Formats: sequence, structure tokens, C-alpha cells
Amino acid sequence: MYPSLQASIRRFVSLEEAEWALIAAAFHPKEVSAKEFLLRKGQVCRHIAFVESGLLRYYYLVGGKEMVGNFFFENSFVGDFGSFITGQPAVQFIDTLEDCRLLLASHSDWQQLYGRIPALERFGRLLAEGLFVHAQQRTASFLLDSPQQRYLNLLKNRPKVLQRVPQYMIASYLGITPEALSRIRRRLALEK
Amino acid sequence: MYPSLQASIRRFVSLEEAEWALIAAAFHPKEVSAKEFLLRKGQVCRHIAFVESGLLRYYYLVGGKEMVGNFFFENSFVGDFGSFITGQPAVQFIDTLEDCRLLLASHSDWQQLYGRIPALERFGRLLAEGLFVHAQQRTASFLLDSPQQRYLNLLKNRPKVLQRVPQYMIASYLGITPEALSRIRRRLALEK
Repeated sequence: MYPSLQASIRRFVSLEEAEWALIAAAFHPKEVSAKEFLLRKGQVCRHIAFVESGLLRYYYLVGGKEMVGNFFFENSFVGDFGSFITGQPAVQFIDTLEDCRLLLASHSDWQQLYGRIPALERFGRLLAEGLFVHAQQRTASFLLDSPQQRYLNLLKNRPKVLQRVPQYMIASYLGITPEALSRIRRRLALEK
Repeated sequence: MYPSLQASIRRFVSLEEAEWALIAAAFHPKEVSAKEFLLRKGQVCRHIAFVESGLLRYYYLVGGKEMVGNFFFENSFVGDFGSFITGQPAVQFIDTLEDCRLLLASHSDWQQLYGRIPALERFGRLLAEGLFVHAQQRTASFLLDSPQQRYLNLLKNRPKVLQRVPQYMIASYLGITPEALSRIRRRLALEK
């Protein structure tokens, strides 16, 4: 069994040895260099991937401009989960920002795991709940928070983004221009 | 057991008689008149509710203006699921648009059901996946679709909204003014 994948699942559910073996058999490793696409708009997301190491993002292309929706670090799952769940074509792109070591499971293998390992349903529920909570909080933050507040939330909750992601992508994730992000950072530095 | 709640769960999972009895015991009925609050911003959502009949919505208050996030019809679950899952205060309001017959389960009773009825985890996973897919599609539609396309999507996928919700709330849900909604409807009527 892949240790980091096992640790991530074990945080939520305890499984038997034979069940871990089933999970290990469903995943296969894949190395992807930085700046490669994992998924393009219009493709159906047929795999769920676990990030052993590296960093990815998804983004929308809006009038030729990239709008970053999320970042995916090591020890998390990555994919267009909407497309993966519904089988509809993705409306977003997913690419690697760093060299990545991924573990991929196909949609059918993943669904079979649910059938064979009932306890995995809890993990799937908590994963989906986490995705929903993130999506809802992001929408609410865009409606209710100032850009500076969104930046402070990011600093507090996801400092890794600020350490490993280029400024212009952070700005895009916050829904502001790189210049506006610079102004916010200068203002906060002065306030210290 | 409440028939419509049972039918809604049975669409996804089969349960034993004793398990249905546990679910029935976790819920209690509540009647709420139209134009009442189920939840206000700042409160923690401590119940999940199933809508036996009626119609509700959630909305954000942005600079004094209501921004409608979703509508909840009969045979669906309603709540601030983000607040329900995380225990954080809600950032939105939920109110009734029609007289409602609801079935309420407390957070702790609902969590106990997961412990006692493992098969319910699948239902919870599919519920959370559905919530996530809706949230993601809504975000993508705001970024990528024109207001007219968003209106046409609503017409196709959720005609009940157009039949039972006042125009100004539909406009708010689509992120446009009531006047812009009227223009879209006139334009589409002329194209027929």
C-alpha cells in the first residue's frame, strides 16, 4: 500500500489488511512533469488522482484569461470532481505547477471499491463534504469579503499557497489583478 | 416512517425495517408558515431538514441586497450544509417562500444514524456529491455563461423555479436585475 495515500484515508476510517490491498490494486503511479495538463476543458475526468508529491491547480478560461479555482498539494485528491461524478465534460483545466508523483484510480475501479469496502463510503462522504464546504466558503467569501480579507484568509488557512504559487496565480485565485495584490501586501506590511 | 423521506433515501440505498425505524425516530415534523426564517446569518445550523411540502431558499445579504443562492423544493434536504458540517456560524439566511411541512433531525441524531446504519453513509456521500456538483456548476455558469444562457439552463433543468418563485428572486438567483430578466424573456419570446 502507498503510505501517504493510506495515511490520508486512515485519518477518517479504519480498514482491514485485505481492504488496503484492494485499494492499492486500484491505484497506479504516474509521474507528471511541471506545466503539463492533467485534464483539459471538454474532456471527461475519468480518473481520481492522489497527490504523493507536487502541486497542481485547476482554472477556468474566461474570455482568454485564466481564473484559478483551486490548488492541490501533496496528500490531497485532485480531479474535476464534478466531471468525475457526473460523467459530463469538464469545464475547467487542471495542470501541474511542479513535478508531480500521482496515484491514479479509474472511475470504475473507484466505484468498485465502494461496492467492496462499505467503510470507504464514509471516507467518500467526508471527502465530498469537504469539497462542498470549500466551494461554499469560496463563493461566500467572494460575495461577502473584501479582497484584503480574502488574502488574509488565505494567509491564515493555506500558507503553502503563498509559499509555492506564483504571485499572478494567487491574484487570480483571489479574483484580483497582480497589481491589486501588490497593493494589499504593501498596505499590510506598513500596518505591521 | 415518513413516506416521502423514505422514498428519497430509497432511491439511493436499501435499508432494513429496523434501520427505517431508527431514521423515523431521528426526525420530527415541524410546520413553518411562509416568510419565516429557518436560519439566520450568525447562527449555527444544528438541524438538517427534509422538505415534505413547500419551498424555501437561502440567500446572502450583500451590501443590504439579497443574493439568492438556491431554492429547496419538496423531497429535498434543506439547511446550511456548510454550517451543519463544520459547526461554524452560517453566513447566509434560509427562509420559507411557501407554507412548509418539514422533518427535522438534529446534528447529533443524524451523526448517530451514520454510526448505526453503515449503508446510510452511501446516501450521505451521494447527497454531499450532489451538493458539490451543484455548487461547482453554479460557479462555472456564473464565470462562463451569459445571463441568457443561465436563464435557459434554469428553464431546462429546474422549471419549478420559474413556476413558483417570484420574478425578482429568480433574477437575484441568476445574478441579474429584474429588468434584465424581463428583457431576456421578451427577447426569447420574440425568437419563438
